[in-house]
Amino acid sequence: MVRTIQLGMAGCGTVGAGVARLIDERRQALADRYGFELRIAKVLVRDLAKSRQTALAGELFTDDVSQLLKPNIDMVVEVIGGCNVARKLVCSALEAGRPVVTANKALLAEFGGEVFRAAAASGVGLGIEASCCAGLPVICAIDRGLAANRIESLLGIVNGTCNYILTAMSAGGVGFDTSLAEAQSLGYAEADPTLDVNGTDSAHKLLILASLAFGCQISLDAVPCRGIESLQTRDLMFGAGLGFVCKLLAIAQRLGDEVMLGVEPVFLAEGHPLALVNGGDAGLCLLGHASGPVVVHGSGAGAGSTASAVVSDIIDLSRGNNRPVAFPIDDGQSVECRPLDDLDARFYCRVRVKESAASKAQVAQIWADQGVVLVSEVRHEVSGSDGAVDMVTLTNAMPGATLRQALQRIAELDTVIGQPVAVRIVEA
Amino acid sequence: MVRTIQLGMAGCGTVGAGVARLIDERRQALADRYGFELRIAKVLVRDLAKSRQTALAGELFTDDVSQLLKPNIDMVVEVIGGCNVARKLVCSALEAGRPVVTANKALLAEFGGEVFRAAAASGVGLGIEASCCAGLPVICAIDRGLAANRIESLLGIVNGTCNYILTAMSAGGVGFDTSLAEAQSLGYAEADPTLDVNGTDSAHKLLILASLAFGCQISLDAVPCRGIESLQTRDLMFGAGLGFVCKLLAIAQRLGDEVMLGVEPVFLAEGHPLALVNGGDAGLCLLGHASGPVVVHGSGAGAGSTASAVVSDIIDLSRGNNRPVAFPIDDGQSVECRPLDDLDARFYCRVRVKESAASKAQVAQIWADQGVVLVSEVRHEVSGSDGAVDMVTLTNAMPGATLRQALQRIAELDTVIGQPVAVRIVEA
Repeated sequence: MVRTIQLGMAGCGTVGAGVARLIDERRQALADRYGFELRIAKVLVRDLAKSRQTALAGELFTDDVSQLLKPNIDMVVEVIGGCNVARKLVCSALEAGRPVVTANKALLAEFGGEVFRAAAASGVGLGIEASCCAGLPVICAIDRGLAANRIESLLGIVNGTCNYILTAMSAGGVGFDTSLAEAQSLGYAEADPTLDVNGTDSAHKLLILASLAFGCQISLDAVPCRGIESLQTRDLMFGAGLGFVCKLLAIAQRLGDEVMLGVEPVFLAEGHPLALVNGGDAGLCLLGHASGPVVVHGSGAGAGSTASAVVSDIIDLSRGNNRPVAFPIDDGQSVECRPLDDLDARFYCRVRVKESAASKAQVAQIWADQGVVLVSEVRHEVSGSDGAVDMVTLTNAMPGATLRQALQRIAELDTVIGQPVAVRIVEA
Repeated sequence: MVRTIQLGMAGCGTVGAGVARLIDERRQALADRYGFELRIAKVLVRDLAKSRQTALAGELFTDDVSQLLKPNIDMVVEVIGGCNVARKLVCSALEAGRPVVTANKALLAEFGGEVFRAAAASGVGLGIEASCCAGLPVICAIDRGLAANRIESLLGIVNGTCNYILTAMSAGGVGFDTSLAEAQSLGYAEADPTLDVNGTDSAHKLLILASLAFGCQISLDAVPCRGIESLQTRDLMFGAGLGFVCKLLAIAQRLGDEVMLGVEPVFLAEGHPLALVNGGDAGLCLLGHASGPVVVHGSGAGAGSTASAVVSDIIDLSRGNNRPVAFPIDDGQSVECRPLDDLDARFYCRVRVKESAASKAQVAQIWADQGVVLVSEVRHEVSGSDGAVDMVTLTNAMPGATLRQALQRIAELDTVIGQPVAVRIVEA
């Protein structure tokens, strides 16, 4: 006998329409395999008047949030985004004993502890696979497949927009603005891409992934975040000449009882498993103490991929695998986090100086004063008509904080043009 | 309050000792996070007299299988291998309503339908993550993370021994026997490596992965299987010169209502996501109709990695995510399978002929008769002192069956030395 699972879906934008389509496509196959039918019974939207690209019948739509909490709704699917409606809806549904599937990374990053406390209190399922890397099964890998491990580190390319832009800049030698416009025209970037390109979206996902991987509560304030807006094509080109590829990386590393976290554009050394994750794709490297390295990559953005994760979670909860993901519950105590800049790394540096022996000596003196050792691969590139050269160097392994102090002093020199650039090198 | 999960473990070889060690290492962390303690309460072994490298107390050991079915055992962990004891134990435990975790690929490939029928009948959990690619979370990716998808295809490097040997042959230009000996001395290969190098182990894993991915019952007889024993280093070298890397690949592809399956050594075209999976590592490419491509790779062999999967399954079942994996249940009906050779592909071919215009013309005539179109990259390599040359060609896309017919005729020519070689090319 086929039982029916009545879904109350909040939101019917690109992702919501994708979820409705996927459920429709797979109705018979899921009934045959699992013995249940998924049915969207109610759709909460903000604006009933808005026209939508979906085959869902008009009478399913409502702008009344209480309709999703009625007893006839078996499960709530939250793809409305934002934190206002979503936070209230998700917590209310969980408190009422209703399992929830959500794709909302901002909600989980900001209020995950609260949301999971509600799930734990009522003991119902809460699926969050779609919140990170869309359809790539990364939550399930950390929460289940690798549950036995002490996860030592986690590196991720988790924002498709930034990865598309960086790939385009590197491949075409074009600037950030041109690449962003291209990403927007192809639907990879939102009309307002601020939260993508400034790293906020990656920080949200890093918080979720690291909270799960390390099993400790992390405050969003503890995730230092640099974006890709100020990256210059010339640095990507110079880096490529040294064998590096630039990626916006979300990094979490366990160091004893502490964790180190950060989001920033880095150079991946040749042979790094994430170096080949290009275009709108996403990827994650996990290091488990028993499993060894595990890499997951592929399509990690878009309506189809996100719907894949949402509907897979719905299926898993409907099958009875219905314990909430082991997200740490808010107990008012966040773990001590250290910024990524405390971590030793080699760095790529570029300083643009007026061409003279004296100016180079000034810069060299500051490096020496600050104890920065430059390795032999130093290149000077003449470019532009200002008679200046780009001094490109690689440092030895050192804390980022020390390097940035040195660069600050260098930036103050009269002979230095523009802001010196430092990019962390992540080794394979 | 911390509850105790009493485990009955069958087998205490390398994997069993790894499981015991990992449970011991993670005892406190698991209790803190999940509120239960895992305790190995009984260990079934074939020979009580054998000395073992584990800290488990001597009184836990038994050679009486009924000890694992006693009411005080909450869960059975089967790492004893083989099909005799394991089949009876796993089915009896499931029938008695006891959840089971097994790492046994041979058992699942040969008796999976029966085992999962027992699990379904009693509705208890059955975890099989460790049966394929050790600690890589591939079962969980297919069964849960991608459950919403129609999986279109699945490509896997699933045997670490073969991958180690092929990587060594390609990197060092050494022969199969030398590479195998090296793999054995480093612990990558068993004393008797037959089931690894002849592809049987890969066929077992392919059957498990494809059964889950496609949701249909597959007979082991339907999986055609070629091993790596007869591969020659010169073919790996000639292939490398054309930009290819040789891997033993497990391939499953959906074609309408049919599936195509096979295990064989192939050349991966440059840029293929599995081309970089080297040494003892494993990897899997899945194509979901909604998710798009998903790649998982990393350490996929060894005691630590296998123990990671076993203990992760134990944790998942103990947390209450305790529905059996959606493996198709034996209903006496296997799906229609077509051999891989029905699938069109380009092929690398090498024919060794006595050096003369006439002999080359004879070969060319057969290619033409059989409708095999050779693309332009043809190389002739003179080697050896027999005055013969290796004619290396790439074909256009064609069914493997047609090509093998042509090669059979070519092999019968007087001027042809040894057996012609054909290697399927798998495009990126």
